[in-house]
Amino acid sequence: MKLDTPRDSIEKVKNKISERNCIPHEIPGASKLGIGITGPTNLLIEEEFQTMDCVEEVIRVTKPYKLVSREMKNEDTIIEINNLKIGGKQLSIIAGPCSVESRQQLFDIAGELKELGIKFLRAGAYKPRSSPYSFQGLKEKGIEFLLDVKKEFNMMIVTEAKDTKSLPLISEVADIIQIGARNMQNFSLLEEVGQLKNIVLLKRGLAATIEELLMSAEYILSQGNFNVILCERGIRTFETMTRNTLDLNAIPIIKKQSHLPIIVDPSHGIGIWDKVHPMAMAAIACGADGLMIEVHNHPDKALSDGYQSLTPKNFKILLEKIEQLAPIVDRKIASYASVG
Amino acid sequence: MKLDTPRDSIEKVKNKISERNCIPHEIPGASKLGIGITGPTNLLIEEEFQTMDCVEEVIRVTKPYKLVSREMKNEDTIIEINNLKIGGKQLSIIAGPCSVESRQQLFDIAGELKELGIKFLRAGAYKPRSSPYSFQGLKEKGIEFLLDVKKEFNMMIVTEAKDTKSLPLISEVADIIQIGARNMQNFSLLEEVGQLKNIVLLKRGLAATIEELLMSAEYILSQGNFNVILCERGIRTFETMTRNTLDLNAIPIIKKQSHLPIIVDPSHGIGIWDKVHPMAMAAIACGADGLMIEVHNHPDKALSDGYQSLTPKNFKILLEKIEQLAPIVDRKIASYASVG
Amino acid sequence: MKLDTPRDSIEKVKNKISERNCIPHEIPGASKLGIGITGPTNLLIEEEFQTMDCVEEVIRVTKPYKLVSREMKNEDTIIEINNLKIGGKQLSIIAGPCSVESRQQLFDIAGELKELGIKFLRAGAYKPRSSPYSFQGLKEKGIEFLLDVKKEFNMMIVTEAKDTKSLPLISEVADIIQIGARNMQNFSLLEEVGQLKNIVLLKRGLAATIEELLMSAEYILSQGNFNVILCERGIRTFETMTRNTLDLNAIPIIKKQSHLPIIVDPSHGIGIWDKVHPMAMAAIACGADGLMIEVHNHPDKALSDGYQSLTPKNFKILLEKIEQLAPIVDRKIASYASVG
Amino acid sequence: MKLDTPRDSIEKVKNKISERNCIPHEIPGASKLGIGITGPTNLLIEEEFQTMDCVEEVIRVTKPYKLVSREMKNEDTIIEINNLKIGGKQLSIIAGPCSVESRQQLFDIAGELKELGIKFLRAGAYKPRSSPYSFQGLKEKGIEFLLDVKKEFNMMIVTEAKDTKSLPLISEVADIIQIGARNMQNFSLLEEVGQLKNIVLLKRGLAATIEELLMSAEYILSQGNFNVILCERGIRTFETMTRNTLDLNAIPIIKKQSHLPIIVDPSHGIGIWDKVHPMAMAAIACGADGLMIEVHNHPDKALSDGYQSLTPKNFKILLEKIEQLAPIVDRKIASYASVG
Repeated sequence: MKLDTPRDSIEKVKNKISERNCIPHEIPGASKLGIGITGPTNLLIEEEFQTMDCVEEVIRVTKPYKLVSREMKNEDTIIEINNLKIGGKQLSIIAGPCSVESRQQLFDIAGELKELGIKFLRAGAYKPRSSPYSFQGLKEKGIEFLLDVKKEFNMMIVTEAKDTKSLPLISEVADIIQIGARNMQNFSLLEEVGQLKNIVLLKRGLAATIEELLMSAEYILSQGNFNVILCERGIRTFETMTRNTLDLNAIPIIKKQSHLPIIVDPSHGIGIWDKVHPMAMAAIACGADGLMIEVHNHPDKALSDGYQSLTPKNFKILLEKIEQLAPIVDRKIASYASVG
Repeated sequence: MKLDTPRDSIEKVKNKISERNCIPHEIPGASKLGIGITGPTNLLIEEEFQTMDCVEEVIRVTKPYKLVSREMKNEDTIIEINNLKIGGKQLSIIAGPCSVESRQQLFDIAGELKELGIKFLRAGAYKPRSSPYSFQGLKEKGIEFLLDVKKEFNMMIVTEAKDTKSLPLISEVADIIQIGARNMQNFSLLEEVGQLKNIVLLKRGLAATIEELLMSAEYILSQGNFNVILCERGIRTFETMTRNTLDLNAIPIIKKQSHLPIIVDPSHGIGIWDKVHPMAMAAIACGADGLMIEVHNHPDKALSDGYQSLTPKNFKILLEKIEQLAPIVDRKIASYASVG
Repeated sequence: MKLDTPRDSIEKVKNKISERNCIPHEIPGASKLGIGITGPTNLLIEEEFQTMDCVEEVIRVTKPYKLVSREMKNEDTIIEINNLKIGGKQLSIIAGPCSVESRQQLFDIAGELKELGIKFLRAGAYKPRSSPYSFQGLKEKGIEFLLDVKKEFNMMIVTEAKDTKSLPLISEVADIIQIGARNMQNFSLLEEVGQLKNIVLLKRGLAATIEELLMSAEYILSQGNFNVILCERGIRTFETMTRNTLDLNAIPIIKKQSHLPIIVDPSHGIGIWDKVHPMAMAAIACGADGLMIEVHNHPDKALSDGYQSLTPKNFKILLEKIEQLAPIVDRKIASYASVG
Repeated sequence: MKLDTPRDSIEKVKNKISERNCIPHEIPGASKLGIGITGPTNLLIEEEFQTMDCVEEVIRVTKPYKLVSREMKNEDTIIEINNLKIGGKQLSIIAGPCSVESRQQLFDIAGELKELGIKFLRAGAYKPRSSPYSFQGLKEKGIEFLLDVKKEFNMMIVTEAKDTKSLPLISEVADIIQIGARNMQNFSLLEEVGQLKNIVLLKRGLAATIEELLMSAEYILSQGNFNVILCERGIRTFETMTRNTLDLNAIPIIKKQSHLPIIVDPSHGIGIWDKVHPMAMAAIACGADGLMIEVHNHPDKALSDGYQSLTPKNFKILLEKIEQLAPIVDRKIASYASVG
């Protein structure tokens, strides 16, 4: 439908869909207004809609994922937050420590990143860990520090929601709620973030196929939240010299299948700090919409993932290179390193 | 410690552990009473305990998993419920449809299984599915039918807890709460079932290593629930002719590492109904403590997983073979098929 | 075609096939004579053959593998050698050390195996090794010892052909030529053993799909050698607690797709000696036609694979169990352990 | 040792090594002369060599691969051929069709590539294929066409050696002999190319670990041929939306471990023509020394791998981008597209 379609025409279409026991989803776009339809769509008769005045085109989506597919919405999704854009021509850089470890640590790192021009600060307050005996994050205390740092530096916060219980608390501080790899198929959690307004960063599970990642995103969109960023962070293979196998093949595949932005986490992906730089470059070179990088001021003392964290100094070197690379792949990046 | 150690001696030991900021776990055993210790155990001085009268032996567990390891407790865990035993010499057979589809379907199948002597009925009310548009189970209605069938046939119910929200409802009907493969590292859910009294059936994640499975079980035990059954149900590999790759290697490996019982789900494991029989036989032959088998009276009409379900008739043929096989691997099995 | 079809009728059919630029393959069977056809079969007109008097049935094989498929030949292939049968109801046990290490070692082990009733002795003279600096086998000297031991004990020899160069020498001593996992897609080697009369034992490659294994067998059959035994020996997955992941799922899958016998090598498959027994039992329980087991008199001193080798004493215990298991899966086994 | 070490001093060191039953390997370098030592090196006494006048330093290599490791030779290996360099600052581009299909096809494509400035032409005369019924290459005829095209266009030829039998013929036409993924552990073939003077392009096997790839290269170097280029071409994982999973993680890992140049084959790696461009960019961005790209003038009519081949027109677009990318990762590239 056209963007200027009057509200009552839109509602007429949506009602017609509902009458046939299907569910209409308004899909925001820059040039067109889409109405995604899910449910028993095989019972719908296309002509009934095609003949309505306000309807420009009726497209049947053949993929198992519907709302996330380019068939449903061809143009790239661009998420806007605080005058920043995620997706489209823009490259987005998220950086910060794996975990909030203390108020001091968080403020120190945030200060250094702020100076480098970083707008998105990542840090986990709730950490899912394989062992019950490993450091599980500062929890409520960590959230408190994140609220403080957000006020102090005016940065946007990216932090992980480990479960539905902590979600309300997380959603108050997080501009972007991260769903971790182990929770990619925690469908109850997906449904709940689908009902929030926060942006969601959905990480690929370590044995999830690309199709399964898109299906999990579909869970979120089908609940009404279209602000989803996908994240490739490495899959599990037989190789043991890397922590995971960062699967950059997923980037061009997903860019073709879906309109959602996708970023890459090379820190978890390869898991060795001095290999993060080349993998980050490769990610941007093959079309990723941004990066999530672990940065720590004292990697050797980090309570988690120190081995894969960059120092602010090495991170700055990477940023400078990304700035050089961006125009070659027809991307823009807010001025970073030159700020510092 | 000896089994007849007086309560106040036990408490004395536990207090001493707590004073040193560690956590004591009483581990039930047939011949000895163990006190598992977790926390900063590197600060404990072994002699302090060795010299206590009531303490027979102090063992330092070298594995990352503690309470589940044979180092902590050497003898097999045998779980008792309604005069039945799970683990040890006993083989346990869990059978039923993938999902509760209707009152009628559930009663029909339960009736046929009861006649075959089956004591444990499996059926899912909440179904985690890759697609938000697939059948997600009858939910509360399904639980209601499970309560009914339980009363009618006096069978023990095995059903899946998909999230913490539905857990209280599930825990009322389930004798055994199943944690599905996708939730193996849903640590919040693990911690909550760890605080319940119900038996927990923990399925291996599809890309989980054996060590990760044991670590997830450790989450449950460390919360106080020692009634955990592990379940091998197939891992994800490159092979495409089977749904998953049932990894029977895990059975002898786990039997050596852990005292917990482990059963096998060949239905999900290989995913093709006419290959379930040979894989079930193989599972028992290599030392599994039981089986979980999908049985449906009309596999072709099943709302989920029909392709991997046995008919009661074919299931009976399998049971007869398992009865023949049991004594060869030094196992007992309650009289099944001969009952029917 | 019927078994008693006169030679000139057979030749008439074969000529007709050749005239149409296709290749005829006579497939030996117990109840029927099959003529497999490969080449541009889409150009063949089925009726042309159906109307020939001697032709009973024309079947178009839909699988990418032709000669190895059950569509081409429904009944199990049974390979006969020295009054022994491989395949069908018969279980075959191949045992011996990984490598020929010395005349003494080979004779000692062969002697012990002979006493246990073993007819097939395995031992490698040429060993493919990941490192050029590892022990590569005794080569020609090893072949010499194998010839000696064969004469002395009248056992059938199973030994690996590493390349086409050593194949003539190997084929003189080997009753069964083993093609190792790394050579499963060494097509030149497959074609050459396809032109020999020796039985071929084709091991599955460690990342080979079941379909690829069958395609590799097809290379051998298409050259005229129908005496092929398949062997499952473990695939490569993410799991690190086992050397490989023995994929027993392959057994029922292959038994359905192909008429060729398939045996299992649990020694390489799981790679830990005290887990070989349960995996061997599982292999027979799910339908394997036999086993290949590494047995060494001094596993701790073995030049290769000692960690996965059974002592003759432990091997005897396994044999006794296999003898008990065989009738339950409707198999026979030559009297073994009871001989010793 | 110093580069200007006199020949008799070198021989003295080598003799001393041989006397102790080890094998000396002269390793060419730009700034130093190395003598690699393999064999029972644990028997060598370091001081015996350290005290020799001409010896600057004695280093014990801790990795299982020796000659290929940076411990043995720290500086990058740069292979020179016809005034071109492979490795170091230089990016090398190999392009051409999967198979030689006809004289015309080969000349047409070579002509177009020559115009784009390509110096290395790839095309297979012997094709290893999973099915015995697939096109196996033009074989001798293909070699003849390659000799012709080489003369006509003065390009360097890259073509695959499938087995030891065809190796002498291949080695006459090939400037670079390709060892395919399936032959990465065909050790007899590795040893034979190790005795030739031709450059060897060794592709990673589809389930080979990085360590195994380096060990296979070690086979070639240990026979005296140091002109080895490694090639990442995708590994086998559970993902099915791509032909293989191109593992770019291997590039920075290998660059750290080994002095050998490594290039990337994104055509096989991802296996879909319109995703080759982004993966090729990523490969250069993360440090690869070059690319091998399938280019075909009529991809839809190709006898093999058409689906992953670029047209010359699309290949030119990629070349232009690679030229822009090269200086950002501190690389040079011979003028390509601008020539055209």
